[in-house]
Amino acid sequence: MTRLLPCLLLLLGTAITPVFAKSSAPSSKYGLVIHGGAGVIARDELTPAREAEYRARLAEALDAGYAVLERGGAALDAVLAAVTILEDSPLFNAGKGSVLNADGICELDASVMEGRTLGAGAVAGVHRIKNPVRLARDVMEKSGHVMMVGDGAEQFARTLDYEMMAPDYFQTDHRRQQLQKAKELEKAKAKKSAALQPEDAYLLRQFKWGTVGCVALDQAGNLAAGTSTGGMTNKKYGRVGDTPIIGAGTYANNATCAVSATGWGEYFIRAGVARDISAQMEYAGRSVAEAARATMAKVGALGGDGGVIALDARGNLAMEFNSPGMYRAHRFTGQARFVAIYAEPATP
Amino acid sequence: MTRLLPCLLLLLGTAITPVFAKSSAPSSKYGLVIHGGAGVIARDELTPAREAEYRARLAEALDAGYAVLERGGAALDAVLAAVTILEDSPLFNAGKGSVLNADGICELDASVMEGRTLGAGAVAGVHRIKNPVRLARDVMEKSGHVMMVGDGAEQFARTLDYEMMAPDYFQTDHRRQQLQKAKELEKAKAKKSAALQPEDAYLLRQFKWGTVGCVALDQAGNLAAGTSTGGMTNKKYGRVGDTPIIGAGTYANNATCAVSATGWGEYFIRAGVARDISAQMEYAGRSVAEAARATMAKVGALGGDGGVIALDARGNLAMEFNSPGMYRAHRFTGQARFVAIYAEPATP
Repeated sequence: MTRLLPCLLLLLGTAITPVFAKSSAPSSKYGLVIHGGAGVIARDELTPAREAEYRARLAEALDAGYAVLERGGAALDAVLAAVTILEDSPLFNAGKGSVLNADGICELDASVMEGRTLGAGAVAGVHRIKNPVRLARDVMEKSGHVMMVGDGAEQFARTLDYEMMAPDYFQTDHRRQQLQKAKELEKAKAKKSAALQPEDAYLLRQFKWGTVGCVALDQAGNLAAGTSTGGMTNKKYGRVGDTPIIGAGTYANNATCAVSATGWGEYFIRAGVARDISAQMEYAGRSVAEAARATMAKVGALGGDGGVIALDARGNLAMEFNSPGMYRAHRFTGQARFVAIYAEPATP
Repeated sequence: MTRLLPCLLLLLGTAITPVFAKSSAPSSKYGLVIHGGAGVIARDELTPAREAEYRARLAEALDAGYAVLERGGAALDAVLAAVTILEDSPLFNAGKGSVLNADGICELDASVMEGRTLGAGAVAGVHRIKNPVRLARDVMEKSGHVMMVGDGAEQFARTLDYEMMAPDYFQTDHRRQQLQKAKELEKAKAKKSAALQPEDAYLLRQFKWGTVGCVALDQAGNLAAGTSTGGMTNKKYGRVGDTPIIGAGTYANNATCAVSATGWGEYFIRAGVARDISAQMEYAGRSVAEAARATMAKVGALGGDGGVIALDARGNLAMEFNSPGMYRAHRFTGQARFVAIYAEPATP
């Protein structure tokens, strides 16, 4: 009978609870790091007005997450607060403003993980969920499962009375233009007449960028991570990248670190980016910064590009990327707010 | 322009090629390990005739994979040869004979990975593909992507002229009975009148077991891994377990090991089982056996059960499980064929 219990618990949808990670001793330091995608955008292509918009939205998301932590809230609540703001902004490739797939619709992936319980949740290929990161959390907390894909994930959302958005809620003119350009290039390539114009550069570089994510450390010393994306412009065949893959795009473990990744998802899955950073801390005793650097070097050696944010339970952080820039920001107790886009440090 | 090339290559579907893992020095030893699921089956519930069937099918798959290696074939080809035989057998929860989801259809997941290139491919939630492991390989080699889910993955298969099977090709009476029993139990639970009968034990224990997989080492010293499953009886909402998650159910890296897992997928994702074994070898210098044991202890501490097979580039292997048994077999140069089901070693 005892042997049957685990089966029954899962079959009947009990939420996960078991724990092996030790909860860290409460830290006096708390705060969060966010990203809005890596791979951007040469300085000469981003107008001052546009840059100001990005900085404002990053700051808003950062402050929303920080406010949760400041009032003693949980790391995962801070992650949700920050990521939903980035999802709701048309500037980033997640939620509203996501890139369009080959069928001209937005297909969204997200995941979350909690460092204390090693609980995790993920959704992939949803089309009508305003905040996929919220659904990923509900998968973790209310389904007894870790990952749901496609229409099934939306059926689960309906059982929780999620509002189903019309597909065009997510779409912007900018993303429609990107899709059109991607299809033109694809056709040209098919005719063996690919003549890439320099003016295509801006659009092309943005095809697969803009994933958003957050890692947070709360006053109780608990870590959490979350990531959300629209994936890759003109993607076909239900392609899924690293964002909803626990251990690739997202990972959190109080004993090591919380990680959220952004970049060329295929390489990030193969390198197992988020988990590789944690594993170096666990098994080789490396710092979060050393580990993040080594992992991104591996991604680069494979041929991939992008970046990661990572945070350990003492508040040490890494923002590592091998692309020209990464939208990123952090805020911690006793420190000024930091917001940056390009490779070099920038002032808030 | 150089910066655009990676975008274009992916957009236009070029297969992955970059490599960072060193190819191991050719080993004189080659061979493979397979599993047909963990979690089985008390000795008194498996009739001698049924046990003989399982053993025969495991031996057939093993020999098919070994024949590939013996004639100098690639590890990944051996994995495909073995896993497709297990998929085609109604005995295992993969391909034909898969468990039924809540809608009464088989929903299949699979993945593969190559240790030399760190190339990987996965499909999740397909309904009409006879050998999902073959499609996972085609995703790796022909799509430029790593993971495809649902109808999209089947559209990709159509572009490669895959035969689409009728959904009832996959179904067996045994699995239909399991689904019926699972639904009865679910209803009883909903009415708060769950009275689990001892005779339900056999069916219940098999609800989530029977995933198949293979790890192989070829004469050139290359490793590969593959895993295939029908998931969990009565699963809903597009639930996906660890099988198609690179780093959870499947991983291969010539520098460390090849791994295929089977068990309660939610725990295997959270523990990142396959990658955790590799990481211990890479960062803590543990042997494949030590690493597999430590990882399965973590799964157990979380509350999960199941097992793994793992193989390093020198032919050292691990078959570790915390369930009453695991269908497993291996065959290596200069060694007798080994086939076992229960916890204790068994003769071929």
